[in-house]
Amino acid sequence: MSIRIGIMGYGNLGRGIECAIRQNADMELAAVFTRRDPETVSVLTEGVAVCSVSEAEQWKDKVDVMILCGGSATDLPEQTPKYASMFNVVDSFDTHARIPEHFANVDAAAKESGKVGIISVGWDPGMFSLNRLYANAILPDGKDYTFWGKGVSQGHSDAIRRVEGVRDAKQYTIPVEAALEAVRNGENPELSTRQKHTRECFVVLEEGADAAKVEEEIKTMPNYFSDYDTTVHFISQEELDKNHSGIPHGGFVLRSGKTGWEGEHSHLIEYSLKLDSNPEFTSSVLVAYARAAYRLYKEGQSGCKTVFDIAPAYLSSKSGEELRASML
Amino acid sequence: MSIRIGIMGYGNLGRGIECAIRQNADMELAAVFTRRDPETVSVLTEGVAVCSVSEAEQWKDKVDVMILCGGSATDLPEQTPKYASMFNVVDSFDTHARIPEHFANVDAAAKESGKVGIISVGWDPGMFSLNRLYANAILPDGKDYTFWGKGVSQGHSDAIRRVEGVRDAKQYTIPVEAALEAVRNGENPELSTRQKHTRECFVVLEEGADAAKVEEEIKTMPNYFSDYDTTVHFISQEELDKNHSGIPHGGFVLRSGKTGWEGEHSHLIEYSLKLDSNPEFTSSVLVAYARAAYRLYKEGQSGCKTVFDIAPAYLSSKSGEELRASML
Repeated sequence: MSIRIGIMGYGNLGRGIECAIRQNADMELAAVFTRRDPETVSVLTEGVAVCSVSEAEQWKDKVDVMILCGGSATDLPEQTPKYASMFNVVDSFDTHARIPEHFANVDAAAKESGKVGIISVGWDPGMFSLNRLYANAILPDGKDYTFWGKGVSQGHSDAIRRVEGVRDAKQYTIPVEAALEAVRNGENPELSTRQKHTRECFVVLEEGADAAKVEEEIKTMPNYFSDYDTTVHFISQEELDKNHSGIPHGGFVLRSGKTGWEGEHSHLIEYSLKLDSNPEFTSSVLVAYARAAYRLYKEGQSGCKTVFDIAPAYLSSKSGEELRASML
Repeated sequence: MSIRIGIMGYGNLGRGIECAIRQNADMELAAVFTRRDPETVSVLTEGVAVCSVSEAEQWKDKVDVMILCGGSATDLPEQTPKYASMFNVVDSFDTHARIPEHFANVDAAAKESGKVGIISVGWDPGMFSLNRLYANAILPDGKDYTFWGKGVSQGHSDAIRRVEGVRDAKQYTIPVEAALEAVRNGENPELSTRQKHTRECFVVLEEGADAAKVEEEIKTMPNYFSDYDTTVHFISQEELDKNHSGIPHGGFVLRSGKTGWEGEHSHLIEYSLKLDSNPEFTSSVLVAYARAAYRLYKEGQSGCKTVFDIAPAYLSSKSGEELRASML
């Protein structure tokens, strides 16, 4: 029998989940839940119910795992504990500083309901976190580096759009190649914020806006841009739509470390992602962990888990025998 | 209390284990076991017992995990089941085709003794296998590539040394940069053996040996060299000792895959290792999995496991709370 997946929230991430389910023969999409009027939402999969979030509880016996596609700022802190009281759930909560609190809330709800909740799934947090953990466990004497990009930062693009005179904008975070190379060469550099990433902005101005003033305001914006070397390009809306409509991202996790009786040997572990679509890749990770949530639940487990707590074999549709024969 | 580690076999790998234990504050080296006369073996760690393998059973209550450092051809198929009947064990069994049989033997012995055995730990099999599994679970519609090197292949170096007229030799396996780039560009190339790796040999001739004949014999050697573009350099023993005494290795695991409703987006996942010392890195992985074996045993688990079956958190000396706060 297939694992029946529910999608809570139908934006970029929700659509990504829908596409990913189609690639996994052991899964099926049971229903999509939306805060909008369900009549106005049309999904890609034929014959799938689109329901109001208020109907979710009625699906308790028809959804094996609910994947929560809300935002980390306000949606997930409320939604994940709430739905963990009815379903096995998976989310992509990414506010690093609030993970301990979120974990505790989801753990309490899931333990009470006897369900499994897996939080902070995706690539960072998620696959990048896993790689930091493995690399640290293997090379205790070493140094970690994480670089992001080249990719679109939604938060930074939004920040530019709030500047007066800006009609539309896209911002790319770009890792500094020289810094990456220094890490790869085992130089163990101490890198400032400015030395690790640059920021490139493509901006469409409102009619009559002052370009120099907009550029100055972007470049000096605290938290977002003032600590970085920032480049601003002014382009037309047509150009922005044509060349900058994608949501690519990616990045690098590196650890350089030493082994030997006197630390005489150096090693470099590097993990990198180059993603055409940030939300679709994140969705693909979420779907793999939905499989794990389902299996752990079937084994009688409950409570909150993170990627650290899940044995890799749970992510694959293959059996232990198949995995050992084909991938070990 | 520290996790007490025993080392079975004191060659390059055993010495690597000894060094790695020193980097992990929650572990201590209990004893080293050797087939040689213990009197002739001196270890780096002060005050540690060197014992004959025949004494191992007497250490049942004084060793928490025995790390087996024998070879895969003849040692481990016999040793791992044998010692799994007395100890929690970890090995680096790397004969891919015989893993199912080895797994079954270790599983039977470990289930009977109530101990945990973790097999095929290292980087390939090991970390590379894990990365294949994670990437396949995330991107079901994709293609896998593994490249090895640049690094020393002991098997190929040994094969050259068996050629008449050769006094000493080192062989490097080198990934073909153009093939790697084609994979990174998402071209999904079909690659022949020759297109993936080249082989570079540094050979010291016996006095009066025929260089042309030796070169021909190496380059046409079936299985080892005939399917590859091979370069042979003749050098002096001094040069070999000076420039080629290390045991570096490494490699790349890549998966390129598609997502989206019609597979319209491409993604690349890449994991790579650049290792100054192949045996010391392998040892560092073995020691992290020894920690996992100990913890699983303490939880009451038993039987054979591979890296696929171990939740990442078991590898780290940090608690779940610490890991979530610092690495997620």
